[in-house]
Amino acid sequence: MADPLVIALDAMGGDKAPAVVLRGAAIAAERFPDARFLAFGDAASVGAGIDGNGILEGRVDVHPTEAVVSNDAKPSSALRNGRGSSMWAAIEAVRDGQAAGVVSAGNTGALMAISKFLLRTPPGIDRPAICSMFPTLRAETAMLDLGANIECDAGNLFQFAVMGAAFATAVLGRHRPTVGLLNVGEEELKGNDAVREAAARLRQTADLPFEFRGFIEGNDIPAGAVDVVVTDGFTGNVAIKTAEGSARLYSAAIRQGFRSSIAGMTGYFLARGALAKVRARLDPRRYNGAVFVGLNGIVVKSHGSSDAVAFANAVGVAVDMVRQGFMDDIRAAFEGLSPPVTAVS
Amino acid sequence: MADPLVIALDAMGGDKAPAVVLRGAAIAAERFPDARFLAFGDAASVGAGIDGNGILEGRVDVHPTEAVVSNDAKPSSALRNGRGSSMWAAIEAVRDGQAAGVVSAGNTGALMAISKFLLRTPPGIDRPAICSMFPTLRAETAMLDLGANIECDAGNLFQFAVMGAAFATAVLGRHRPTVGLLNVGEEELKGNDAVREAAARLRQTADLPFEFRGFIEGNDIPAGAVDVVVTDGFTGNVAIKTAEGSARLYSAAIRQGFRSSIAGMTGYFLARGALAKVRARLDPRRYNGAVFVGLNGIVVKSHGSSDAVAFANAVGVAVDMVRQGFMDDIRAAFEGLSPPVTAVS
Repeated sequence: MADPLVIALDAMGGDKAPAVVLRGAAIAAERFPDARFLAFGDAASVGAGIDGNGILEGRVDVHPTEAVVSNDAKPSSALRNGRGSSMWAAIEAVRDGQAAGVVSAGNTGALMAISKFLLRTPPGIDRPAICSMFPTLRAETAMLDLGANIECDAGNLFQFAVMGAAFATAVLGRHRPTVGLLNVGEEELKGNDAVREAAARLRQTADLPFEFRGFIEGNDIPAGAVDVVVTDGFTGNVAIKTAEGSARLYSAAIRQGFRSSIAGMTGYFLARGALAKVRARLDPRRYNGAVFVGLNGIVVKSHGSSDAVAFANAVGVAVDMVRQGFMDDIRAAFEGLSPPVTAVS
Repeated sequence: MADPLVIALDAMGGDKAPAVVLRGAAIAAERFPDARFLAFGDAASVGAGIDGNGILEGRVDVHPTEAVVSNDAKPSSALRNGRGSSMWAAIEAVRDGQAAGVVSAGNTGALMAISKFLLRTPPGIDRPAICSMFPTLRAETAMLDLGANIECDAGNLFQFAVMGAAFATAVLGRHRPTVGLLNVGEEELKGNDAVREAAARLRQTADLPFEFRGFIEGNDIPAGAVDVVVTDGFTGNVAIKTAEGSARLYSAAIRQGFRSSIAGMTGYFLARGALAKVRARLDPRRYNGAVFVGLNGIVVKSHGSSDAVAFANAVGVAVDMVRQGFMDDIRAAFEGLSPPVTAVS
């Protein structure tokens, strides 16, 4: 059994690797005094990154690797040729019990493919999903799948509901979280066969460790109507990116508004402290760290373009999941369901 | 041939019908001095509504109807039992050439079902779609389908691209509009079979009356990356509602921010004029009026909860489409394509 606070880092993943990875690890090291790191990557540049961040000295083991999975590699080719890369070796460290979780800012498709291959799924789970949290009017909401599974059947959606609820319990600290299935209307007859059948099964299952709230619509996501939003990977990916783009639209429009008059500029000067708090609350960097749920191991994906603060938050998500016993929670959730759940295609 | 500026109104559709419908018509009557209306609905209450809005006198013909399609009627039952309702009769007026377009704030599913039944689709179009415009960083963007077709094949998506481009030309005044296909990534291999095949066909068609820009992602919608966003009705419905919900989240968060301190409140007082302009630019009421494109007639759906200003804007969309010759544009677009386009299932 690995020390619960050893985190494996794909030090070569991301736009500014390994510098940002190691600066992010340094911020995380300060925040989590009992965390240690295994850094997989080019020995010279990783070593230089550690030297530049004093707090990391003695808390990082460097594992030299030669290859790097490129950002445009297809998942299939990463699987064929990725052995020995920093990403592959970091995931292997989780599989072999040397680390309790892995964080990578590298190629998402490759990270998912290699994680599936090396870690496999626990009993009852057919396919892992990408799960992330984001700000809402009420509090944080978790959503899955965000792009791992383009087409999903009712069984997949049912399992995502169970997986997402376990995530909300472990990471967001919600007891019996509320779960909604994303649809185009709240009525039972709306939507496609997969969402209708998944809803029927969720309603029929008596001993769910969460509260199923039925269908929700797109506007319910930013409203924070439920703790967990369940959808297929195509819709989820579009929805989360639309929300991110809308945030940028509103910030830009408001900035323009303030600049359009002297009164606006003066008003901005006075209100800037208050507005900075709003920005901090809705800062996407706070919510960096998409989790691959439904694997035998904790895998967290940081945005490829994330800075050190955002990368540190992704490490924080991995640390939370380890500390809160997410792996045990998700196994218990599936074992507790009767009858056993399997995907029907 | 109908007088081009006669608009049929489903006077009984919407949460506060017929009062809001007639107040909206009065605002539109002021804005479009050559517009006339056919109002279908309860003779007494519609008459009272006209009496209350002086500008409408002599410009509205009241056509008494007895039945109303309820908001929770299923499309199939509206089709079976809706004959003689205000909605049905208003659409019939378009089919029979008495009106150039119809505006309704009633039940969306019923409006689409009855419109399809009475108006049919022009040659080359297999299924109509719901199209709307919304604010972006750059300018207005049109998106379709927003919920009429839950599952779409490549042929449907191809046709939506042609239909959406005709809409952007007629209503947004764009010459050779840019069109993007919504996907989970920009690479050719991403997405499901329908989007990949639709993209391949769009790339292979030489004489498109628009510029196909390939795949776009959710964040590109609010960024205004293209004039027309094409997607299936499930994804489009979720995306537009997520964008609307995000707008509410940001307004609320900013309001809270201003209220959190004396400096914030003072700043708000000074900047309120500038912020009102931002709100006006992003006001969803300005963008009211979802158009059913791909029918032999102009059908505009106003939000059920829209106020008179929003309803007047929906009437304005219908007037624009009539004036700009949308019906001729869309027919010409499909006739101009070689080889003829038909949906393959």
